[in-house]
Amino acid sequence: MTPTFASAGPAGDRFVDRHVGPRADRQDGTDDVQVMLDHLGYATVDDLIDTAVPASIRLDGPLDLPAARTEAEVLADLRAIAGKNQTRTQMIGLGYYDTITPAVIRRGVLESPAWYTAYTPYQPEISQGRLEALLNFQTVVSDLTGLEVANASLLDEATAVAEAVALMWRAAKRGPAAGPGVVVLDSDLFPQSLSVTQGRAEAIGLPVVVADLSAGFTSGVAAALADADLTGADVVGVVVQQLGASGQARELAPLVDAAKEAGALVTVATDLLALTILTAPGDVGADIAVGSAQRFGVPLFYGGPHAAFMAVRKGIERMLPGRIVGVSLDADGAPAYRLALQTREQHIRREKATSNICTAQALLAIVASMYAIYHGPDGLRAIAERVHGRALAVAKGAHALGLDVEHDDFFDTVRIVVPGRAAEILAAADAVGINLYAPDADHVQIACDETTTSFHVEQLLAVLNLDGADLAFVAAGEPVPARLARTSEYLTHPVFHAHRSETQMMRYLRALSDKDLALDRTMIPLGSCTMKLNAAIQMEPISWPELAGLHPFAPREQALGYAELIGSLEAQLAEITGYAAVSVQPNAGSQGEFAGLLAIRNYHRSRGEGARTICLIPASAHGTNAASAAMAGMRVVVVATAADGEILLDDLRAKLDQHGDQVAAIMITYPSTHGVYEEHVREVCDLVHAAGGQVYIDGANLNALVGLAKPGQFGGDVSHLNLHKTFCIPHGGGGPGVGPIGVAPHLVPFLPGDPLDPQGATPVAAAPFGSAGILPIPYAYVSLMGPDGLRRATEIAVVSANYIASRLNDAFPVLYTGPGGLVAHECILDLRPLTAQTGVTAEDVAKRLMDYGFHAPTLSFPVPGTLMVEPTESEDLHELDRFIHAMLAIRAEIDEVAAGTWTLTDSPLRNAPHTATSVVSDAWDKPYSRETAAYPVAELRTAKYWPPVRRVDGARGDRNLVCSCPPIEAYAEPGESLTTTEENR
Amino acid sequence: MTPTFASAGPAGDRFVDRHVGPRADRQDGTDDVQVMLDHLGYATVDDLIDTAVPASIRLDGPLDLPAARTEAEVLADLRAIAGKNQTRTQMIGLGYYDTITPAVIRRGVLESPAWYTAYTPYQPEISQGRLEALLNFQTVVSDLTGLEVANASLLDEATAVAEAVALMWRAAKRGPAAGPGVVVLDSDLFPQSLSVTQGRAEAIGLPVVVADLSAGFTSGVAAALADADLTGADVVGVVVQQLGASGQARELAPLVDAAKEAGALVTVATDLLALTILTAPGDVGADIAVGSAQRFGVPLFYGGPHAAFMAVRKGIERMLPGRIVGVSLDADGAPAYRLALQTREQHIRREKATSNICTAQALLAIVASMYAIYHGPDGLRAIAERVHGRALAVAKGAHALGLDVEHDDFFDTVRIVVPGRAAEILAAADAVGINLYAPDADHVQIACDETTTSFHVEQLLAVLNLDGADLAFVAAGEPVPARLARTSEYLTHPVFHAHRSETQMMRYLRALSDKDLALDRTMIPLGSCTMKLNAAIQMEPISWPELAGLHPFAPREQALGYAELIGSLEAQLAEITGYAAVSVQPNAGSQGEFAGLLAIRNYHRSRGEGARTICLIPASAHGTNAASAAMAGMRVVVVATAADGEILLDDLRAKLDQHGDQVAAIMITYPSTHGVYEEHVREVCDLVHAAGGQVYIDGANLNALVGLAKPGQFGGDVSHLNLHKTFCIPHGGGGPGVGPIGVAPHLVPFLPGDPLDPQGATPVAAAPFGSAGILPIPYAYVSLMGPDGLRRATEIAVVSANYIASRLNDAFPVLYTGPGGLVAHECILDLRPLTAQTGVTAEDVAKRLMDYGFHAPTLSFPVPGTLMVEPTESEDLHELDRFIHAMLAIRAEIDEVAAGTWTLTDSPLRNAPHTATSVVSDAWDKPYSRETAAYPVAELRTAKYWPPVRRVDGARGDRNLVCSCPPIEAYAEPGESLTTTEENR
Repeated sequence: MTPTFASAGPAGDRFVDRHVGPRADRQDGTDDVQVMLDHLGYATVDDLIDTAVPASIRLDGPLDLPAARTEAEVLADLRAIAGKNQTRTQMIGLGYYDTITPAVIRRGVLESPAWYTAYTPYQPEISQGRLEALLNFQTVVSDLTGLEVANASLLDEATAVAEAVALMWRAAKRGPAAGPGVVVLDSDLFPQSLSVTQGRAEAIGLPVVVADLSAGFTSGVAAALADADLTGADVVGVVVQQLGASGQARELAPLVDAAKEAGALVTVATDLLALTILTAPGDVGADIAVGSAQRFGVPLFYGGPHAAFMAVRKGIERMLPGRIVGVSLDADGAPAYRLALQTREQHIRREKATSNICTAQALLAIVASMYAIYHGPDGLRAIAERVHGRALAVAKGAHALGLDVEHDDFFDTVRIVVPGRAAEILAAADAVGINLYAPDADHVQIACDETTTSFHVEQLLAVLNLDGADLAFVAAGEPVPARLARTSEYLTHPVFHAHRSETQMMRYLRALSDKDLALDRTMIPLGSCTMKLNAAIQMEPISWPELAGLHPFAPREQALGYAELIGSLEAQLAEITGYAAVSVQPNAGSQGEFAGLLAIRNYHRSRGEGARTICLIPASAHGTNAASAAMAGMRVVVVATAADGEILLDDLRAKLDQHGDQVAAIMITYPSTHGVYEEHVREVCDLVHAAGGQVYIDGANLNALVGLAKPGQFGGDVSHLNLHKTFCIPHGGGGPGVGPIGVAPHLVPFLPGDPLDPQGATPVAAAPFGSAGILPIPYAYVSLMGPDGLRRATEIAVVSANYIASRLNDAFPVLYTGPGGLVAHECILDLRPLTAQTGVTAEDVAKRLMDYGFHAPTLSFPVPGTLMVEPTESEDLHELDRFIHAMLAIRAEIDEVAAGTWTLTDSPLRNAPHTATSVVSDAWDKPYSRETAAYPVAELRTAKYWPPVRRVDGARGDRNLVCSCPPIEAYAEPGESLTTTEENR
Repeated sequence: MTPTFASAGPAGDRFVDRHVGPRADRQDGTDDVQVMLDHLGYATVDDLIDTAVPASIRLDGPLDLPAARTEAEVLADLRAIAGKNQTRTQMIGLGYYDTITPAVIRRGVLESPAWYTAYTPYQPEISQGRLEALLNFQTVVSDLTGLEVANASLLDEATAVAEAVALMWRAAKRGPAAGPGVVVLDSDLFPQSLSVTQGRAEAIGLPVVVADLSAGFTSGVAAALADADLTGADVVGVVVQQLGASGQARELAPLVDAAKEAGALVTVATDLLALTILTAPGDVGADIAVGSAQRFGVPLFYGGPHAAFMAVRKGIERMLPGRIVGVSLDADGAPAYRLALQTREQHIRREKATSNICTAQALLAIVASMYAIYHGPDGLRAIAERVHGRALAVAKGAHALGLDVEHDDFFDTVRIVVPGRAAEILAAADAVGINLYAPDADHVQIACDETTTSFHVEQLLAVLNLDGADLAFVAAGEPVPARLARTSEYLTHPVFHAHRSETQMMRYLRALSDKDLALDRTMIPLGSCTMKLNAAIQMEPISWPELAGLHPFAPREQALGYAELIGSLEAQLAEITGYAAVSVQPNAGSQGEFAGLLAIRNYHRSRGEGARTICLIPASAHGTNAASAAMAGMRVVVVATAADGEILLDDLRAKLDQHGDQVAAIMITYPSTHGVYEEHVREVCDLVHAAGGQVYIDGANLNALVGLAKPGQFGGDVSHLNLHKTFCIPHGGGGPGVGPIGVAPHLVPFLPGDPLDPQGATPVAAAPFGSAGILPIPYAYVSLMGPDGLRRATEIAVVSANYIASRLNDAFPVLYTGPGGLVAHECILDLRPLTAQTGVTAEDVAKRLMDYGFHAPTLSFPVPGTLMVEPTESEDLHELDRFIHAMLAIRAEIDEVAAGTWTLTDSPLRNAPHTATSVVSDAWDKPYSRETAAYPVAELRTAKYWPPVRRVDGARGDRNLVCSCPPIEAYAEPGESLTTTEENR
């Protein structure tokens, strides 16, 4: 039979109508978008967009993507994709171990919008819950490593090793007169740590050598230096892997002592679970410890996202990269958490920038911290002993089968000598559903973990028993040898002893999240960070075992579902951006920037133009750009911007003339960080191309372009995308981010390579596909929206931003506008005139907004003394108006200060935010009423968010040190006027 | 190879240690349980239990259940079980239709502890969120049915029909002089509605006949009455199925007019989705409408739980069974929701009790209401039109194939005449993954739903085209014929227009749940309702499509996973209770009671002892017991209880002597509702058995018995269990409940039958396995705990209750104690002396506890003027002490009233609870401070729950009408002193 019905398309309603906030069908007959357009004086969305977006960059047709599908269809599609993956018992190891995520934590954190839709805790007053959780994480890391200061997570273990290498170079404080220096890498580091670190070190010009430290530090290093013709070089630092890729457990003390003797700093790459029973690096004098917290309850996720960690001894904590949570006091003297100790390395002069990390893996760090809290020190130790016991049983069983076990000292990974039979054993293991690892044809490795049972041990011994020997043997638990064993205490803080029943853990998770403001309660009107809907349908698949349970180094034929998913997503993103190819490996925007610049550098080198090492960066650029350029071995030259935010073409020409064939690239953001569509972007690109340079277009503001223009078409050679901005990956309270890059055809050969392939291109992340586990989110988003929906989202984001700009312009002047007086998808509100007149600052407004139930806009980026607002397409007119009313009410309060009704210092603005305890206090002594403090608008009486602390005392910490991203000033020539920054890449 | 390692048991920690709250390993070296035992003066838990629980009923060994398994093991087991089910495109219909649960609602309600761990909203001040949601549900039902008053859900459509029949009998107000009456049931009612309703009517003695109304009301009824030898009987009421089991859509107006003409009341069983385009029953004069709200976003769940509904016209709303939410005002005059309009039918004298419903399907009603809000009237109408369009396409396609379609008028279900070929067509449909329904060998029915696509239509026509005919035909949408079409508006309230974007829906769900106190924030120290942990691991499987997606009437061979799950659970429960067999069909405790009593009645009848119709019920019993007895056609005789709560054996003997061979059964609760282990329970059972009666042991308090004693061993012949109390099904804010029964061997033949099997035993629910979709929860609980864990839970529940009783006894005397001065798993605190002395009532204490962040204990049940407290085993010592401290602080406040510091009316007790707006108010004029009102203990300053309304004004509604369960007084002989009730069955 021939079907007689044309498929009438999807059953169910259109996702775009759920994702895009403004309604077309209000009960009173109005249409939110039309209301906004009427206010703005445009007849149609097209009219407004045609005015705002320069015709020179506009697409002339729709995106070539499949039509939108319904939620049910995309869910079915993802189930089919997941079904193409094969789950196995994963015993590959190499830094990734299966683990049991307690269901209360999966449901209460990973699947709870209150946690995953939260923004980075730059505004501490509305972030106390996640700040406490991250402080707990730091405490876990600090306690277990035995080092005093830990950060709130890094991107993955491999980049953490690279960061440690850079940190050791900085901490060594080698003067200009110092001789040649080198950092030594343990040859038993995980292969992906080696390849990523070598790539990073090579890019920035830090010499490293790889040494076999098995026979001792001195002889191993001497041999490595000799091989590298570096005999006599100062050993600046050494990275030792406490639990090697080969499974070997190193005795740390002799190595650390010898390295210290040689004047080197020591980094130990280690494993948090093992540290519950093995020597803590800090206890034997190591300076730095790094590793991954994945096995503390975070699924394998086919490679990520996972939280890596770094801890350092006292004395070098101000060089620690990444975010650090610290304790301070609020205005009432109550303890309050905040991001503290801004990372110093990002403020040094550009020649020495060695890190560009901006984001963290907050959500995963929180999961890991909760896992530690739920198990407590005794529980963790019991798990570690069980894991070790299983590995011992495997080793003894192998011995009994007459097989050699390569290392006597191990924690979880047993390396067995099987001459010529590794492939055979892998196949036998596969037949019983187990993945092992064979580093070569003669060895197999078996990594035990929390999920390994005695039945698995039996299966493994059967697998190893290829020749059918008899076994008569019973395993017995053995303590770790004293020379390897830990002696110090850990996790003694009460928090690690108070939440052990599921009931109490559930309540702790709820109580913490209740302190915070996330998207599930209010719009988060940030500029630059696009805080749009993270739809539940996009989030659901990441918990499925067929997606969450794959090891990143599992055979590719077991990951056919992921291959399809990643291939489809890369194709979607390539079409949207206009590039030839996309790599999803970079697991943060900053990593994308680094990968993109590395591609440019390697392209120039491949053409014999290695001298092109200058990166032009406009003054309005995001601070990370410059740090990334420095990391890629480039020198930053700043291009001035005009008062309206546009790049000064004359200055660009001058800089191009001046630096000529040294120009490697220009990095621009489009629309600019000033929130406008610059008219001359094509001209800028053409000028740089004419000078032989490449154009890097930062995709941070892609939410203003999707479906309207393609960076790859209007001049870009490479862009990174922030999937956590434009493509709906939730911010997770400060990570995970994902920062893929798209490149033009000539750059395709220079995309990041496989971290396990020593012959391939330089990788930038530990796992081949970065944070693969959350890629279903953007894939679902693009599939659900379709080409029309994606364009619609962009258009409405622009309409909404213009509506806010226009409604607020009289009260708070909009600083920059583009064609037709329009902004792009965000607008900068200039508080400086009001500040000059009344003393009320942008910060006062930001904090007072909390009393109105809002998260603050972006504060003082890219222009100090301003607020940047990006409503996104997901907020409906009701929410936009609620925000506008709050801002206008605040303006009226400012007028009261101007009129002398209140002094500034005793005004509700300066005293904001107000806690419940402060307004309930019997000692209330403010010149305004409690009701004015708490309920400045009536609707708050029925829906009030109470900030848990009052304004956190900036004078106690580093004022303005709320972000780990470097401000562009650090890269400016003296006298240039630049900006500070607060964004999350 | 022979495995050489004995399986060392589970990897991972023991679930019992997560479920049971008190910790054995406090950081200071203490053990919560030992602290409690020390306080109580017992050396060990065994000592205390041996004292509390009479030796005469104790088990002498452990439960014969498999050892505890870990969370990972049970999850894997459930995945394997789920994998044995086969999902199909479900087009069987008959009241169950596939639907798309919006992911934001699945995640935000069904998977959110804030919603599902909430208790029934008897305490309105801390329940405003779910009360609003339920009021929305009522509005949906009322609007769509066109009837003025709807309740907040019933258990399923079949029982709703039965309730409607009973309601019509009551509403008809037939005097003693009335002639024979009868209710007419449409022969096109769903078969399960017919079988359940006939069973219920037969039990209580209400005559019903089944009539074919297709040819008109008058002739159809006349024929039915003639067949039943009832010609001339008054037709009291009629139930018409608007969308028949055969798919036929009835034109309502002529039927209703004719029925009214004949003096009958009219109930229309209908479909909410169809009502968006078909005639509303209320618009044509129907009195009652019933149906299921399942297809509004609630998964098929293999039969349940789903929310049924009932709406009635003005004038009979006070007879409406079930819970009704109404609007009132709080003490500050602010609008506040509350349960209102207590159901009148339960207060009539016992001979006429026709309903025993106590609980609702709150969680599912909330899902359905949110589905309606998310789609709004236009969206719902579009879905209905699409469903109807698909059915039209099927019908036209069938016509084109030369097949007869039996009815011209239909909504979603097409009945096709296929002489002798039904089985063949079912098989062909099965081959393409579709389930159809064949009522007989000559017909197939195809039910379209929200998920039906045009591709499905194509598949179906191919299935029907057994003879390979050619098709050349295109479907066109057609409006519903005017005589069937709806003309009135619906869902005009703003709530159905305000939350259409996913962002706003997510926030609405969060905002509502934030108003409420559930287990995710505090203990809920109710007596009688066991509010223990609902573990995330138990909840996760219910969302899996392999469990959620099965139709209850799918072929059993597609449900092998369910068969295993249900068989295992029934075996677990039989072992725990000591019965021979268990049926999980009853979908609430009240239904279990009815099913159990029916089994007893039928047993007596089978032995020729049909005259045994008296049910003995102690005065302390739960009110539902008496209503259930009445429903089973029994007469209630109350047995007196002593001052200490024990059954008076002398009175029992007297009643047995008096009623002799009329005694059918005794219903007792053990431990009694007084919260003590009565010593003479075996004697009670023996006396009743000796008199030829059966013993029904109410399992409401089974949490005090599991692992210690088995009702089936110490004298019970039948018990119902509340899986939502003892076995961790969450309360869902007032349902779902599950109430299986266990029976002794002689009663096994009388267990509930298959609702679709006309030859089988009487069913009590619409679906063969009741609320099958949530049975993974108790199955997982029992599997995770194992025999030792289950016993441990019981023991700790008893220890904790005694600890609270002992700690509070000086401040609030414990009313009843058993052996050794001990209580069982709960204790009753007597406020009456303090009330007499100070005027402070138990209600004042309950409401003041809200200011301290607690849910109130059970108020005035089973004894007026008292509070009953049950801590459960899931609360740790920290939480128990927090509660104790709050209670002692409240006692100190009472002492201040006694001392004259505050007058009662101006005390924080009587003014409780205090909202944030009330304490922030500039007009504060209380004699105590704002801080005393809001922060009576210091820890509230960092963790404060703010009640959203002040005390709801009881004078505006029906005072004390907070529950739909009938108080036992209604069943007492004049002059007997009995109790009121507040519990959730």
